[in-house]
Amino acid sequence: MEAFAGVRVARDVLEGYCVTLLASFGANEEAARACARALAEASSRGVDTHGVRLLPLYVQWIKAGRLRTDAVIKFERRAPSLGVVDAGGGFGHPASYRAVDEAMALAAEAGVGCVAVHSTSHHGATGTYALHGARKGFVVLGFTQSGPGVVLHQGRQAFNGTNPIAFAVPLENEDPMLLDMATSSIPLNRIYLRRDTGVPLPPDVAVDAEGAMTTDANRAEALLPLGGVEYGYKGAGLATMVELLCTMFTGTPAAISLPSFNDVSRGAPSPLGHFFMAIDGARYRGLSALTEASTGLVSRLRSSEPRAGASVLAPGDPEKAEKASRDRDGIPVDNATWQRLAELAAEKRVAVPAV
Amino acid sequence: MEAFAGVRVARDVLEGYCVTLLASFGANEEAARACARALAEASSRGVDTHGVRLLPLYVQWIKAGRLRTDAVIKFERRAPSLGVVDAGGGFGHPASYRAVDEAMALAAEAGVGCVAVHSTSHHGATGTYALHGARKGFVVLGFTQSGPGVVLHQGRQAFNGTNPIAFAVPLENEDPMLLDMATSSIPLNRIYLRRDTGVPLPPDVAVDAEGAMTTDANRAEALLPLGGVEYGYKGAGLATMVELLCTMFTGTPAAISLPSFNDVSRGAPSPLGHFFMAIDGARYRGLSALTEASTGLVSRLRSSEPRAGASVLAPGDPEKAEKASRDRDGIPVDNATWQRLAELAAEKRVAVPAV
Repeated sequence: MEAFAGVRVARDVLEGYCVTLLASFGANEEAARACARALAEASSRGVDTHGVRLLPLYVQWIKAGRLRTDAVIKFERRAPSLGVVDAGGGFGHPASYRAVDEAMALAAEAGVGCVAVHSTSHHGATGTYALHGARKGFVVLGFTQSGPGVVLHQGRQAFNGTNPIAFAVPLENEDPMLLDMATSSIPLNRIYLRRDTGVPLPPDVAVDAEGAMTTDANRAEALLPLGGVEYGYKGAGLATMVELLCTMFTGTPAAISLPSFNDVSRGAPSPLGHFFMAIDGARYRGLSALTEASTGLVSRLRSSEPRAGASVLAPGDPEKAEKASRDRDGIPVDNATWQRLAELAAEKRVAVPAV
Repeated sequence: MEAFAGVRVARDVLEGYCVTLLASFGANEEAARACARALAEASSRGVDTHGVRLLPLYVQWIKAGRLRTDAVIKFERRAPSLGVVDAGGGFGHPASYRAVDEAMALAAEAGVGCVAVHSTSHHGATGTYALHGARKGFVVLGFTQSGPGVVLHQGRQAFNGTNPIAFAVPLENEDPMLLDMATSSIPLNRIYLRRDTGVPLPPDVAVDAEGAMTTDANRAEALLPLGGVEYGYKGAGLATMVELLCTMFTGTPAAISLPSFNDVSRGAPSPLGHFFMAIDGARYRGLSALTEASTGLVSRLRSSEPRAGASVLAPGDPEKAEKASRDRDGIPVDNATWQRLAELAAEKRVAVPAV
C-alpha cells in the first residue's frame, strides 16, 4: 500500500465534475449522469480501481470511436419476467442502471425480472447496479463479461475476462450486503502495478506464456482463475457461467474475440454483454421477514469467532467502512488521476473544482 | 486413487434395486423413485460421493425419524415467476425434481421461474436437478445449503456448509454443460478419507480448531472456503450467497444451526433449504440460436491451448466421459457399499440383483 498523495473531494462535487467533463466530450446527458454516478459511487465505497480514475480512459474511447456518445438505449420486454436492453454501442453505465430498473419493474409484476444487455461497454463495478436494486428492496444478481485476461483451468491463453459476479441483498437499518467478486484471485491491473513496483506477485494467481505459474510480474501473461493451479476449474467454471449468461441470450461474441481494455485501434464499439436478475423476495413473506432473515445471517456471520489476530467480515463490509469515512472526509483522488482530469478540463475549458 | 474392488451394475438394475430398498423401509413411491433416480444419475456420471453410497445413510435417517417417509410435497405459486415447495420434512430428491419442474412451468409462462424449497433434506448432487431442467431446454441454476463444515474467511468455526452452485445450459447434440461445484476447495469427506489413509491433506484447504491452516487430517476441524487463506473471502462470499438464497425467502434456519450429516440424535427432520431458477432462454432468439451460442463457446473452450502435459475441459466434461463408459460397462459399486446395500436387503427380504 502506497501512502496516499492527492486531494480529497466531496462526492457531489466529484460527481458533478465528472458529469461536466463527460458532457464536454460529447456524452449525452443520460450517459454523462449515469457514468459519473457509477464512478463516484465506486470511489465513495473505496473501489478506486473502478472509480473516477476510469474517466480518462472512457474519454480516450470516445475520441477513438470505441464509445458512441449518441447511443440511444432501448428496452424490449420478451416475456413477463424477461427483457433485453440494447445499449447501442454506448456507455455501459446508463445501460446497466436501465437494465436493473427494468428488471425491478418486471419483478414488481412477475416476481422475478431478468434483463440481458447487449451492444454495451464497460460499466465500472458490477456491484454498483446490484446495490442500486437492493437499495430498493430487491435481491439482485449482476454479471458482466470483460476482455480476455484469465486462462482456463490448465490453459495457456487468456480466454475469459475477470467476469465478476455481484449479489446484493437488502438488510435492516443499513446499506444492503454486497458481494462483488471477480472470478480470478486478483485483478489484472495488479500485474501491471507490480511490473512498475518490482514487487513479486503472490503465488498461484498468474501464469507465463506457457501457462506455467509465475510470480514474476514481467513474465506474467494472464491470470489464473480463482482456485489457482489445483482448484482453478472452479473459478474457470464460474467465469464460463458468467460468459454464457452474458452472451448466449443475445448472441454477443465471446470475450476471447474482444479487444483488450486499452485497445482503441478498432475505432468502433466493442460490444459487450451483461446480465441482471432482480427477485422481489418480498413476495414470499413480506420484505420485513426477508430483511430480518438476511440481517440475522449477516449478524451471526460478523460475530463468528475469528482466528487469532484476524476478524470475520460480511461481504462488502470493508467498503461500508470506507464509505462512512469518505462520506465524512471526502473521496481521496490520487495526484495522477486528479492531474489527468485537470488536463481533460483544460482541453474543454471546464472549471476544476476548488479542493 | 484406490484400485476399484466391487461389482458393476447396469443403471436400470441399480436404480430399481434402490427403489425397492427405499420402499421397503417405508419411503412412499414418489420419494423412493426420485431418490433412486437421483442417486443412480449421480453414480452414472461418476459422482460416487453423491451416488448410491448415500442410500444406507438415508435409511438410517428414516429409522431415526430424521426423514419423514409420509411427507406430502406441496407447491404454491407466489407470483407469475415465483413459487415455493414445502417438502414436508421428507426426502430432498422428490422435492428438488418437483421444484425444477415447477420452475420450468413458471418459466414456460413468464420466461423465468424461481422456486424456493423449505422443510427439505439432503438431495444428493445439486447438479442432478439443474441437468434435469437443461435437458428440457432451460437454463437452470440450483443452490443448496448443507450442514456446517466450512469456516468463514479468517474464521475458526465451521459456519457455512459446502454450499454448492449448479448451473446447466443446453448444448447442441450432446448432454447439457453442467457446472456443479462446492464453494470449498475440497469436499468434507476428503478429510475423513485422509484420516483413514494417513495421506496428508493438500495445503490451503483445511483448518485446525484455532482456524490455522493445517495439512494434518487428524487436526483438521473444518474446510477453508474456495480461495484458501488469501482469497477465501471469495469462496466464503459465494457460500453466503447460497446460504441467503436458500434461507431468506422461506425463513429456513442458517446452516450453523443444522446438525451434521451423520447426526441422527435429534429424531426429527432437520429442515434444509434449496433454491432453483429456470430461465426459458429460447424466449430471446429461439432455442436453436441459444444452443448454437452455448455450443460455440464450449467448443472454443475445449480447443483452447493447454499448458504442457495438460488438457482444457468444459465444466462437466469428466463426468460425461465417465457416463459414456458407465452406460456401456455398468456402474461400479465398491464392495463396502454393495455389502451395506445387501445387509439392508437382507433385513427386509429384498432380492439382491445378480451381478
